[in-house]
Amino acid sequence: MNATDEERLARVCLSRLGEPGDAPLGRLVARVGAVGAVASVRTGRVPPDLGITEEKVGGWQIRLPKTDPEALLFVCEQFGGRFVCPGNAEWPTTLDDLGARAPHGIWIRGAADLRHACLRSVALVGARAATPYGLRVAADLGAELADRAWTVVSGGALGIDAAGHRGALAADGLTVAVLANGIDSYYPPRNAELLAEIARRGLLVSELPPGERPTQLRFISRNRLIAALTRGTVVVEADLRSGANITANDARKLNRKVMAVPGPVTSVMSRGCHRLLRADSPATLVTSAPEIIEEAGLMGEGLEPQPRGPVLARDSLDLESRQVLDAVPLRGGSVPAQVAVTAGVDINTARSRIALLSALGFIQKSAAGWTLKR
Amino acid sequence: MNATDEERLARVCLSRLGEPGDAPLGRLVARVGAVGAVASVRTGRVPPDLGITEEKVGGWQIRLPKTDPEALLFVCEQFGGRFVCPGNAEWPTTLDDLGARAPHGIWIRGAADLRHACLRSVALVGARAATPYGLRVAADLGAELADRAWTVVSGGALGIDAAGHRGALAADGLTVAVLANGIDSYYPPRNAELLAEIARRGLLVSELPPGERPTQLRFISRNRLIAALTRGTVVVEADLRSGANITANDARKLNRKVMAVPGPVTSVMSRGCHRLLRADSPATLVTSAPEIIEEAGLMGEGLEPQPRGPVLARDSLDLESRQVLDAVPLRGGSVPAQVAVTAGVDINTARSRIALLSALGFIQKSAAGWTLKR
Repeated sequence: MNATDEERLARVCLSRLGEPGDAPLGRLVARVGAVGAVASVRTGRVPPDLGITEEKVGGWQIRLPKTDPEALLFVCEQFGGRFVCPGNAEWPTTLDDLGARAPHGIWIRGAADLRHACLRSVALVGARAATPYGLRVAADLGAELADRAWTVVSGGALGIDAAGHRGALAADGLTVAVLANGIDSYYPPRNAELLAEIARRGLLVSELPPGERPTQLRFISRNRLIAALTRGTVVVEADLRSGANITANDARKLNRKVMAVPGPVTSVMSRGCHRLLRADSPATLVTSAPEIIEEAGLMGEGLEPQPRGPVLARDSLDLESRQVLDAVPLRGGSVPAQVAVTAGVDINTARSRIALLSALGFIQKSAAGWTLKR
Repeated sequence: MNATDEERLARVCLSRLGEPGDAPLGRLVARVGAVGAVASVRTGRVPPDLGITEEKVGGWQIRLPKTDPEALLFVCEQFGGRFVCPGNAEWPTTLDDLGARAPHGIWIRGAADLRHACLRSVALVGARAATPYGLRVAADLGAELADRAWTVVSGGALGIDAAGHRGALAADGLTVAVLANGIDSYYPPRNAELLAEIARRGLLVSELPPGERPTQLRFISRNRLIAALTRGTVVVEADLRSGANITANDARKLNRKVMAVPGPVTSVMSRGCHRLLRADSPATLVTSAPEIIEEAGLMGEGLEPQPRGPVLARDSLDLESRQVLDAVPLRGGSVPAQVAVTAGVDINTARSRIALLSALGFIQKSAAGWTLKR
């Protein structure tokens, strides 16, 4: 099934009308479809049994005159972004687990395929005001997960998030930043360079259309996407009030694995982790990437630095990924610059496709460079 | 029931004939009694169905000519020690949980009553080569447990053990050091001052008679006594090969609570703790004295800095403890030196009895000094 243009435009519209995770709007879409939902908002007539108040509808209507889906899609294309919604091959079906709180679509920047990237992914989350200890552990885990071809998902924030992303990038891995603002801007400004690098070599994603700014509520709603996209969430460092606790809670509700890294009991920034580890349904204590993969992975999968084999059929890959895959040798090893020349793609495309193909288990890295996996 | 002199002398003898935790000797005592067991060793005739080999009996016999129980008791009295065995009021009946591996008796140095001291006790154990982090946590937990009138039991070793004992002493609490050598000598020498202080203000105990030296096996066997005497064992810091893991294992087998303090995942000295916390039957993660008491204590007990009330009847106390108790005021507060004068006992006796009475819930400490509890 493929999303029709009409459905697609309706979902772009909905991604602006409702705030992230607006369950009444989700219920309306589930009942009358995306196109029908936009029409309902326009006319103000919604099925009476959905428990949707007039005020609620009024809140959606107020944004309608200022919403031009075609203009949003045009703007997005200008900086090389795209909009993916249910019915598209790239739609991560794990988001459907959110039910009425699922996003209407995802705005994406970056070359890799979001669904493929998240097939074998884990969230590394934690405090912005992290300690040197937490930053070091997040970066190490990010790199070690990337070495084992796992994708690192986080929120692009200061502190633990940034360290996790950076670790994955340093190991030439795939990383996904889920933003609480439109993917046309980099927030927080201090992470602008990092986020630009993620847009080039990984994926920047958001359920909010270009032009939207982050708010406190949007930061909180964003966490459910991080939880839903991944097989498990690892809280690296968090005080008792950290948003990472929300992500962990979302992950638990979605039946994803919840993990926490311990730290000194004398450190305020490990208190959130220790509380998770002491809870009635305790998080799993993890101290290394293999322990994370053991918990989040399928049985016996990915414990070795190189996983067994591809998680997808070769012909389900997009054209550029297949070009890059054809350019990776079976023996010897090739660096990204060589692969780019052989495949006839630019170096950033080569890098991001290599990361995706690694995460999907098609290729592996050795000292000599990238080779096909047998 | 009271141990007869004959039984008592037999048990002193057995405490030297068999190595600590010698289960065949324990089975022999269970079958024919302590007096009968010594006679069996002497004649070499043991019940054939106990699975005790001739070589085993030979090993006991070889020490018999060099064992003089009355001389051992005399030596022990010279430095103010005593020997306590099953049937004595001071015998900690929790040791009976060790079955055939229970000690034949316990050699004790210090004024407090061992059984009373261990009614509300917890073991703090860990690595000798502890880090500054582990030492700080052990000392803090020792002091906080003492503040809540819990007795701290450990092995008197360097590192975590010493820090736990010191913390308890610093808070004027009761602490028990379980040695792997006779209580007439201080081992390791670097802890001599600490162990002398524990003998004055707490309890030095051992299942080995005076004159015995520590061995590797005795260190290991000693751990089962620490586990058995307490309601739970807390591993503060341990590498993967630390003896603290043995104590934790002993505690689990005895159905005592097993707890572990987390630390940095980058620290080798927290690896043993993290392994316990990740085990199939995981230890409980604890970060503070209230959490330890919550786990080890009776429901709702001892969570406040001052526990509710005494755990023993007043008239079950020994004479000196009652003298000291009579000298503690109901209001105002009195320091140990005042209590000593009022009670007519020396200052060290006053200190150790105050610690015991606090652990038993009869008295409490405030800024002004010690007062009776209502």
